[in-house]
Amino acid sequence: MDGASLRGTPGRGYRWEPLARSWLAVTLCALFVSVGCKSAQHVAPEPSTLARGGSGLSGQGDPLPSWNEGPTKAALLDFVERVTREGGPDFVPAEARIATFDNDGTLWTEQPLAVELAFVIDRVKALAPQHPEWRHQQPFQGVLEGDLKAVAASGERGLMQLLAATHSGVTTEAFDVTVKDWITTAKHPRFSRPYTDLVYQPMLELLALLRAHGFKTFIVSGGDVGFMRAWAERVYGIPPEQVIGSRAKLRYEVRDGAPALLLLPELDLMNDKAGKPVGIQQVIGRRPLAAFGNSDGDFEMLEWTTSGTGPRFGLFVHHTDAEREWAYDRNAHIGKLSRGLDEAPRRGWYLVDMKKDWKVIYPFEQ
Amino acid sequence: MDGASLRGTPGRGYRWEPLARSWLAVTLCALFVSVGCKSAQHVAPEPSTLARGGSGLSGQGDPLPSWNEGPTKAALLDFVERVTREGGPDFVPAEARIATFDNDGTLWTEQPLAVELAFVIDRVKALAPQHPEWRHQQPFQGVLEGDLKAVAASGERGLMQLLAATHSGVTTEAFDVTVKDWITTAKHPRFSRPYTDLVYQPMLELLALLRAHGFKTFIVSGGDVGFMRAWAERVYGIPPEQVIGSRAKLRYEVRDGAPALLLLPELDLMNDKAGKPVGIQQVIGRRPLAAFGNSDGDFEMLEWTTSGTGPRFGLFVHHTDAEREWAYDRNAHIGKLSRGLDEAPRRGWYLVDMKKDWKVIYPFEQ
Repeated sequence: MDGASLRGTPGRGYRWEPLARSWLAVTLCALFVSVGCKSAQHVAPEPSTLARGGSGLSGQGDPLPSWNEGPTKAALLDFVERVTREGGPDFVPAEARIATFDNDGTLWTEQPLAVELAFVIDRVKALAPQHPEWRHQQPFQGVLEGDLKAVAASGERGLMQLLAATHSGVTTEAFDVTVKDWITTAKHPRFSRPYTDLVYQPMLELLALLRAHGFKTFIVSGGDVGFMRAWAERVYGIPPEQVIGSRAKLRYEVRDGAPALLLLPELDLMNDKAGKPVGIQQVIGRRPLAAFGNSDGDFEMLEWTTSGTGPRFGLFVHHTDAEREWAYDRNAHIGKLSRGLDEAPRRGWYLVDMKKDWKVIYPFEQ
Repeated sequence: MDGASLRGTPGRGYRWEPLARSWLAVTLCALFVSVGCKSAQHVAPEPSTLARGGSGLSGQGDPLPSWNEGPTKAALLDFVERVTREGGPDFVPAEARIATFDNDGTLWTEQPLAVELAFVIDRVKALAPQHPEWRHQQPFQGVLEGDLKAVAASGERGLMQLLAATHSGVTTEAFDVTVKDWITTAKHPRFSRPYTDLVYQPMLELLALLRAHGFKTFIVSGGDVGFMRAWAERVYGIPPEQVIGSRAKLRYEVRDGAPALLLLPELDLMNDKAGKPVGIQQVIGRRPLAAFGNSDGDFEMLEWTTSGTGPRFGLFVHHTDAEREWAYDRNAHIGKLSRGLDEAPRRGWYLVDMKKDWKVIYPFEQ
């Protein structure tokens, strides 16, 4: 089953309508609508020096060496110290130390386009030889010819066709292999490096700090769960069972004696905005202690997390570094942060000012 | 929102139709249809002596002291030894050591009726004062008067009403409190003990053995996920994020500034039969190494697990002890094991003969 045959199957029309509100549809729309627009500025990165600060937990040296000293770093260290201090008023037993992280824009770069969009485009190109009809059929024709305006003109239905053609009709294990192959060969257009090089060094340090203090770290992101699971363990040390994402419905089948799970062209969970607390409850079953995001798509996750009783922590990564990464917030097509920026102060959420707070953006700068 | 008001809400009819195939509907049907039937025999339990065998891993004494020596115990110990022997041909890295356990009939007793059914009945009684109309309205009237034939006569729609009235219309946190209250006070009709006393000592030892050897242990059961999470950590040492069950849809809401997740009267996942591999993939994202069940509802979980490459383990608990517990399989209304019994030998799955293999059934026998 593939996008083309699905389209031609009577009575089995697309059922990804809920994706109207989805991250991928929205970002696809944004991407194709904004072709040629300058939604974020960037220049060549300037390598930073890696200085080591003196602060830290338990006198073990600085656990967050890529973070500049300041209120955000201090608050992170203070929070971890408080919830792990046995006998202290804010102590939280290890089993309740759950931290959730958005992925795109929070753990790795999401500009100039969400990484999974690059995957969609590359997959359409790779599958095209098996689909000669795509040469004359939008939105596939537009993708193949680089005519993104034509893709955008195909509207939501066209975008759903792209998703179905690249994310369903295969088994979960085949999809995993496809993503693993792609992620090791595809290159980021600006940095000419694998996308997995473009993770944020300060966030890797934060993940390690939390885990060293008994936290279980989860990804809770809008991207497809199978897409993220294919590399999250290698890159972040986060195993598949701690990755929560958007997902297609699955069907268990036994073909010629071999069981398989088939990805269907129907959305099962849209793990964005109000879908994030739902995904968290479905998979984790308890409220996180800390949540980290970078856009309004993470607002409800931070809201749900920090409205629990006892010590909680909420943080947005604010993209303020147009030189080393990108600078964007309220008017961004991808990763818009507006309500979060307005409400963070009164809700007690922290804002990382990437330019000021991070000595290093990427591991390769070191 | 509760069952009564839901019934009276135009245009918001029940959407638990998929439960037609569900464990709870099936067992509710079975329960009410079989009233007065003898689907399983039992007599007073006879305390067993707890002898310690000499076998075991790493010479640390017997890690499965409640298991009699025999091929099943030997196979379990051998499997754990093989997959954890570094450098050995069957070695599996710790992160892939996933073991999944059905709950009802595999980790605790499911006779004479599934524990969650007792909860449903008790909840209807507890909620009845707020619903005077239930005195004249089936299936509630039948539950309140102990007229289970009338309940059965209300059919599937009636059973769905019972589920909606007892499992939805409240927040996840309120439901958790309700279950925690109930589980600490309700008593099993035969043993006059809390239901959580009726867990299987040999399976507790197996859970501990696996965890001591780097396995992550998950519950993958047909019961409601919130019902199981409320006590699984205390009783089995299995945290909420490692409990996979059937679940209702959720809606994230902010009421008067307080966020909550509301349980809706609509099924989101039926975690039984072919739904078990789906639940496993959604939450865990990789194929288990070992799976443990007791009924045909676990068949697909064992099939999916043991058809993976490399060493795998599948096991059914076969209820053969009419004295200490219950004896049932092919003709059981609850926990039917027929296809599994037929196919276990050729698939290489083990069968626990409870009467022969287990020295002790429950912890309190010790």
